[in-house]
Amino acid sequence: MTQNTRVAFAIGDAGGISPELAAKVLAHDDINRNDMLVIGDRRLLARGEADAGVSLDLPVIGLEKLGETMPEGTFMVDLRNCDPETVPQGASSQGSGRAALENFRCALLACHAGFADVCFFTPFNKHAMRLAKPDYVDEIGFINATINAQSSGREFNVLDEVWNARVTSHIPLREVADALDEDRILKSLELTVQVMEGAGFERPRIGVAALNPHAGDGRNFGDEDDDILAPAVRRAQQKQLAVTGPIPSDTVFVRAIKGEFDAVMTMYHDQGQIAMKLLGFDRGVTLIAGYPFPIVTPAHGTAYDIAGQGVADLGATRNAVALGRKLAARLAPQDRSAPQAGQLPELFRKALDPASIWA
Amino acid sequence: MTQNTRVAFAIGDAGGISPELAAKVLAHDDINRNDMLVIGDRRLLARGEADAGVSLDLPVIGLEKLGETMPEGTFMVDLRNCDPETVPQGASSQGSGRAALENFRCALLACHAGFADVCFFTPFNKHAMRLAKPDYVDEIGFINATINAQSSGREFNVLDEVWNARVTSHIPLREVADALDEDRILKSLELTVQVMEGAGFERPRIGVAALNPHAGDGRNFGDEDDDILAPAVRRAQQKQLAVTGPIPSDTVFVRAIKGEFDAVMTMYHDQGQIAMKLLGFDRGVTLIAGYPFPIVTPAHGTAYDIAGQGVADLGATRNAVALGRKLAARLAPQDRSAPQAGQLPELFRKALDPASIWA
Repeated sequence: MTQNTRVAFAIGDAGGISPELAAKVLAHDDINRNDMLVIGDRRLLARGEADAGVSLDLPVIGLEKLGETMPEGTFMVDLRNCDPETVPQGASSQGSGRAALENFRCALLACHAGFADVCFFTPFNKHAMRLAKPDYVDEIGFINATINAQSSGREFNVLDEVWNARVTSHIPLREVADALDEDRILKSLELTVQVMEGAGFERPRIGVAALNPHAGDGRNFGDEDDDILAPAVRRAQQKQLAVTGPIPSDTVFVRAIKGEFDAVMTMYHDQGQIAMKLLGFDRGVTLIAGYPFPIVTPAHGTAYDIAGQGVADLGATRNAVALGRKLAARLAPQDRSAPQAGQLPELFRKALDPASIWA
Repeated sequence: MTQNTRVAFAIGDAGGISPELAAKVLAHDDINRNDMLVIGDRRLLARGEADAGVSLDLPVIGLEKLGETMPEGTFMVDLRNCDPETVPQGASSQGSGRAALENFRCALLACHAGFADVCFFTPFNKHAMRLAKPDYVDEIGFINATINAQSSGREFNVLDEVWNARVTSHIPLREVADALDEDRILKSLELTVQVMEGAGFERPRIGVAALNPHAGDGRNFGDEDDDILAPAVRRAQQKQLAVTGPIPSDTVFVRAIKGEFDAVMTMYHDQGQIAMKLLGFDRGVTLIAGYPFPIVTPAHGTAYDIAGQGVADLGATRNAVALGRKLAARLAPQDRSAPQAGQLPELFRKALDPASIWA
């Protein structure tokens, strides 16, 4: 199923373990099988090779030669946007943030244009990205702006034992209750089922976390669980989705990891993240779905504390690429040849246009 | 230190494992060392003995003989308020809720009057208590009303690895942000330090969980972490308390269990409970502190599914009594003789007065 997927791979933050992970990904045939369009600075990747203790035989094409004949299979477009001599290792910097955003934008537009099926990146650092682009909020906002998305995607946290999706995300806690309505919850449930079916779940079982303590305790501690969540769950059930809830949020994850649910739908950011991080989510995958192509990255961060040591674990990164390929093959099966010479220059010109990226 | 503590022991919900746990507690000299004033129905305790496979040699005194000479050491006051033939096992009922509330009230008033140093109970069932007393919200409200408390106590969740205290508890999530202010957080921190010092921590290290995702992410996702939590933490630090934060709530527990903090202060109910239940809080202890005497109970519930099987684990119950005795010995050391004949009748009459308990 997955033999024809092409991955647009944006090398992440230069200050952390992203270059090392990038080198390791490209050195492992089982991850790097078939096509990868690698986007970043070849000099930074070379530092990653040195950190990882690997040596890559990677076709590279510079921006100025993009219009010429393309290499077959995996190759790199060298943006020459991040000289490792000019950015600190083990810390965030404007230079690393700027390059990561450029790489990301190129990868997104490559997928958007149909040159690749999966957008994958090694860890970003939000602080570095804000140094480069002060109005940067999160990946989803940047994706929406970059590909001019009709509707916003959702973030999924994926562990072997349990998936987590959420109805609201990066908003103040005080705004959560008012941000919930039946339609929004139902839509989140439907999207989750669709994405999980794409990932191979036949009929994913979803536990819905309650908003209030003890699921409102019979309206003693709030009405939303009775008035909003329960009706949304009933509507999902009427659509034959395997959805249960609302369940007090302090027990829904315990029940999920005992095998009762494949996923937990949480109402707000920390409700899921508290549980997932305790469950070892750093070995998991962050998936952004709801766009025509999946966007995947390891759940862990840039790990400045171990940058350059060669000890970065490839597990979550490997899982991220594998999940992306699996979803791409199922969700949008496409049979496609290598990018045509002559199309890439316009794509990258658009991606790197300062007026639209830094505006 | 703990040899002189007396425990007022309210037998909990009759439908679950409380009678069995009660029998096991009283059968184990290491838990039941020194004085226990056991409050409940002797017939129900007999069912617990049968379930547990133990046989107790326990002095019992009926309500009608309360004014006469008291037994030495551990003894039971038989309220004859819960005939096991009349309440279902494995389900909640009005009868079991009514008896549990009576037992609890007697135990609280026994402590309040100085007859005992620790209030301990085996698990209650909130549904049963509401069947008996529809306006029952939670233990803290009942305690406040029963002993006419000047200020409300706080619930602590105690595991070997980490303690959890919270600033707000049984309120709707939408009301949490407005319920927080600097003074309230500071007061919670001070009470937590005081209680933990009583439990033997020399200078307890407390991590404060942020309210908003990513601790507000520099005001991108809410202002409370900067405007309320951070100043409260600074004030606590100025008072030489070992308090750190606000820390994003999805990492504070991970850091605590790695050994960085002895306790986590959470802003709302589920923020702590999600983590504690995943960490196996069912083997932990619920402590209600902030009153002149500690109130302790195992963290797990009535376990209707295993009622009557004799398999209830005594671990959390054992820990609860031990913590209660430890705190009582440190917080309010008292050297006291057995309750005097002539004082108990008034105490129990007041405790069981229908007008004040069911009003």
